[in-house]
Amino acid sequence: MRADAQRNYDRLVAVAAEVVGEQGADASLEEISRRAGVGSATLHRHFGGRGALLEAVFQNRIDTVCAQAEELQDHPEPLQALTIWLHSMVAHITSTRGLGPALVMSAERGSACHERILAAGRSLLTKAQVRDDIAIEDLLKLVNGISLASDEDTAQADRLLDLAIRGIAPGHS
Amino acid sequence: MRADAQRNYDRLVAVAAEVVGEQGADASLEEISRRAGVGSATLHRHFGGRGALLEAVFQNRIDTVCAQAEELQDHPEPLQALTIWLHSMVAHITSTRGLGPALVMSAERGSACHERILAAGRSLLTKAQVRDDIAIEDLLKLVNGISLASDEDTAQADRLLDLAIRGIAPGHS
Repeated sequence: MRADAQRNYDRLVAVAAEVVGEQGADASLEEISRRAGVGSATLHRHFGGRGALLEAVFQNRIDTVCAQAEELQDHPEPLQALTIWLHSMVAHITSTRGLGPALVMSAERGSACHERILAAGRSLLTKAQVRDDIAIEDLLKLVNGISLASDEDTAQADRLLDLAIRGIAPGHS
Repeated sequence: MRADAQRNYDRLVAVAAEVVGEQGADASLEEISRRAGVGSATLHRHFGGRGALLEAVFQNRIDTVCAQAEELQDHPEPLQALTIWLHSMVAHITSTRGLGPALVMSAERGSACHERILAAGRSLLTKAQVRDDIAIEDLLKLVNGISLASDEDTAQADRLLDLAIRGIAPGHS
């Protein structure tokens, strides 16, 4: 891709993420190209249609949470780093569910995303040195459940996650 | 209701709970009346149709978890009692979701059930004297999320619940 085409592509994805966040998966494509300062022809040349654009938004969010995990590796308090990242994951999962059934992705690509997230979380979990009977898979299942149960109420999701991190009854085994 | 009619009713509900547990919400009504040892006319006289029968099964399960909470009030270890009950709630929520869209209940009756469960759990939570910033509403939301994320995998749900009870990082605040 030429440099200016790449810039348009990146801007379209960033703007789409914003507009989809506001309006949901059926966000106006006209609005997206308008805010990105390109014509709708450019949007359609890059993405074909809504499906590919939503997938790019999704991939972009995965890149973001993985990059955040990478940065958090150097956090002075590894447990805090893990906690910050899990809260980001709640927000990520909630916003991803907002993409709804319009987001269709091949099983292969979906599974690649899942693996990247597992690897990112696993390395934070290892550094945090919490109980060694906790697997990152369980942790992400829990985060997923919290996000599902809280629907769009992110304040509640954050509260439930804090509760699970600190424990309902920490002394209990 | 006459005593023998009441007995038939109770047996039908108990058998229906069993068969629905095995076959799901579209369980065979013939099978249910056969196992209960009554004619299908008797089943239809009591319940009219599948909807009312499923609602009776649901009410019966609510009665069971509330009765269990009642019994657990006298448990020598209140924290253990709360834990046992939360595990039952995971099983209850999982099996209730199995009733699926066939279970239609008035908002009023649904909300009465919800209130009974909250009251039952609240009294166990109070006795358990865990952190005083935990509300029973949050605890049940968490249990619901765990059950949703685990789908039908009750072993996983139990593991996630234990994880949340003991805390991912208990020393952390």
